[in-house]
Amino acid sequence: MKVVKFGGSSVADAEQIKKVVNIIQQDEERKLIIVSAPGKSKLYDYKITDQLIKLFEASQESNTYDSYLDSILQRFSEIIHNLNINQAVLTSIEDSIYSVLESHLPPEAKLDEMKAIGEDSSAKIISAYLTECGMEATYLNPKEAGIIVSNEPGNAQVLDESYQQIYKLRKKKGIMVIPGFFGFSKSGELVTFSRGGSDITGSIIAAGVKADLYENFTDVDSVYTVNPNIVHNPKNIDVLTYKEMRELSYAGFSVFHDEALIPAFKANIPVAIKNTNNPQSEGTYIVAERKQHKQCVVGIASDAGFCSLYIHKYLMNREIGFGRKIFEILEEENISFEHAPSGIDDMSVIIHEGQLTPEKEEKIINKINHTLQPDTVQIEHGLGLIMIVGEGMLNTVGVTQKATTALKQADVNIRMINQGSSEVSMMFGVLEKDINKAIVSLYKVFFAE
Amino acid sequence: MKVVKFGGSSVADAEQIKKVVNIIQQDEERKLIIVSAPGKSKLYDYKITDQLIKLFEASQESNTYDSYLDSILQRFSEIIHNLNINQAVLTSIEDSIYSVLESHLPPEAKLDEMKAIGEDSSAKIISAYLTECGMEATYLNPKEAGIIVSNEPGNAQVLDESYQQIYKLRKKKGIMVIPGFFGFSKSGELVTFSRGGSDITGSIIAAGVKADLYENFTDVDSVYTVNPNIVHNPKNIDVLTYKEMRELSYAGFSVFHDEALIPAFKANIPVAIKNTNNPQSEGTYIVAERKQHKQCVVGIASDAGFCSLYIHKYLMNREIGFGRKIFEILEEENISFEHAPSGIDDMSVIIHEGQLTPEKEEKIINKINHTLQPDTVQIEHGLGLIMIVGEGMLNTVGVTQKATTALKQADVNIRMINQGSSEVSMMFGVLEKDINKAIVSLYKVFFAE
Repeated sequence: MKVVKFGGSSVADAEQIKKVVNIIQQDEERKLIIVSAPGKSKLYDYKITDQLIKLFEASQESNTYDSYLDSILQRFSEIIHNLNINQAVLTSIEDSIYSVLESHLPPEAKLDEMKAIGEDSSAKIISAYLTECGMEATYLNPKEAGIIVSNEPGNAQVLDESYQQIYKLRKKKGIMVIPGFFGFSKSGELVTFSRGGSDITGSIIAAGVKADLYENFTDVDSVYTVNPNIVHNPKNIDVLTYKEMRELSYAGFSVFHDEALIPAFKANIPVAIKNTNNPQSEGTYIVAERKQHKQCVVGIASDAGFCSLYIHKYLMNREIGFGRKIFEILEEENISFEHAPSGIDDMSVIIHEGQLTPEKEEKIINKINHTLQPDTVQIEHGLGLIMIVGEGMLNTVGVTQKATTALKQADVNIRMINQGSSEVSMMFGVLEKDINKAIVSLYKVFFAE
Repeated sequence: MKVVKFGGSSVADAEQIKKVVNIIQQDEERKLIIVSAPGKSKLYDYKITDQLIKLFEASQESNTYDSYLDSILQRFSEIIHNLNINQAVLTSIEDSIYSVLESHLPPEAKLDEMKAIGEDSSAKIISAYLTECGMEATYLNPKEAGIIVSNEPGNAQVLDESYQQIYKLRKKKGIMVIPGFFGFSKSGELVTFSRGGSDITGSIIAAGVKADLYENFTDVDSVYTVNPNIVHNPKNIDVLTYKEMRELSYAGFSVFHDEALIPAFKANIPVAIKNTNNPQSEGTYIVAERKQHKQCVVGIASDAGFCSLYIHKYLMNREIGFGRKIFEILEEENISFEHAPSGIDDMSVIIHEGQLTPEKEEKIINKINHTLQPDTVQIEHGLGLIMIVGEGMLNTVGVTQKATTALKQADVNIRMINQGSSEVSMMFGVLEKDINKAIVSLYKVFFAE
């Protein structure tokens, strides 16, 4: 049994939906279908979810929201017309929008209900079209599917009891089309996941039914070795391990939201990344273990927006408790850190810039000065991290040499290296302005030669 | 005014002491002389301090100690005879040994008094010989000099109030010869520093009198760029900064005990390392700041005997407080750590192996398992650290590339890199067995080409 998820561009218009149905028809193992809301396409330069949010906001501020409502309904109407399915589907979509607008829920819950309409409508349309094409297909609401979540609007967390419920779907006949992006709390409220949440839904369903494969259809042929916005037409990755994927996506790989795949990983379900527009392409498989490549580096990721908190105190390493106190201060300010390389008399803590405000920075520096009396404490902004990823790297001679040679050739100053704490990655800190030339040079050394 | 310290080999016999006096005569700024106990020499293959400890131990166990006593007295007697100075000095040394043997002090205090006799006798002999040579010289006991310390036998710490006392020595006339290695507690007990403590005494006196220079005479021409036991006849270092010296001596550089120079550093006194046997040689200067070398690496140090505590937990970096809890556990066991590189889901803590016993290891691992429920926790033994040191390294492109190329050429697998936490060093973790070939290759790349 395969769980198949189609992203926003795969369901953006009737033409795309026909491809989706074609893909489903190709393989009778494809029984559980998760769909996103219609995204951007050749015909439409906006995402339905964004329109729904604007509609909600206008309604909250008692502004006129007709233009948003019209564009949403017109788009669904066109899709339904072009697929030649029953107009009742459109009426049902229209009804659900009005029902949210007229409800007396608190604003946060109301917003979640509104946002969910995009995915919900996709699922209704696609199940209708599958039926129209002569297949046995039903729309399945996440509540019926068994997705039970915490009641945190916009940030739902799946509850473990869901999986038992979801497992029962194995017994159902025909194709089930489930809207992604939301679940229901124990008391019955609709709650959405964080953005990109259709990946999460697919991952939860795949884990729950113990699928043989979780296929994730997007608009790229595969996961690439480096960011294609930096290197033109880079090589693709055929097989990745979960660990490798996690390290890559952590440092800015954009195929997935960081943690969308965790339920599938935990249940040991292999994941395939495939292209709706080119389903013949092999795609990228993400698995628990893979055969060791000759070339142990599989991908290189990069991200900007980091800063480094640097603390120097003469004889620091004689002071038992120094590191603990620094971490305690960060914890009090609710700041998580990425890396914390330490020297004899120095310690650096790498932090996502997004977590800091000028006030918070000042507070942290004051606390450190007060508690630890260091000789120096300062924050350096504008750092980028580059992550070179591959299982087996730790035991391979020469990987570091290759990487540092590439950076030298690109005249990139290495501000920081962290190697050896992780078994599957090596991290370089560079100035943000150097990220692109660093990646170009690293790609050349590791993949193009 | 210069403070000059002579080490054990410089005062090992009459021939050496004549060199010392000659050096003192060459420069009238050399007014405060600190001396060690006689060490090994061409004529004697033992150190006086070791004999004094054996003498003490035999006396404690009521064994016969005559052979130790005889060899000590005979050696001093020979020195005194060959220098042709007053026999009263020998009588005074003999008296002080008997006085300790007959005292009713607790064993720890008695041992400290016995150990101090080596340095104390050196100072008496040399001041007598200086006088004999027609110079104005006096023996100055550390109590008279103003060295006030904490009452921790074998591990005295200087008290800040010493410095005011010591400053008064500037007004005294003539040359003062002070025995190294010990001071006196506020209540008047003699307490020794940790081994190598004559360096500490020199450093304290230099700081106290605000010397223009602290000259440290040993038996090497200079500080070397790498360990001369690994690389034959390596290049010397002409100027080092305090920071560089600290990082080098931390990782096994053997010229000094790790922290002997701290009082001088704190008082901003430049230090010169010179050779008693070749005083014409320029030696190595250790200063607060130096002009930037073209070659920014000044030295490479290495040390064995480390282990790595590795902790992996899926989604570790989302858990605020994880790092802090690990440090807390180590703190409870009174373990200080050297470096703590962390990855996304991993953290390694590098610890001096000497701090761990199998029982302690088990306790730490159990505590971590209990408190943090990690996926993996393990300790890897047999690690060596290599420290490449030089101010300005952080801002120089290509240093890392040079280093990793050298390690690759030597077929050394890099287990760990820590760069960027310190501004003056870069640390590589390798297997202990690889240290020597790594250093040979690094020396070639950084200094021989």
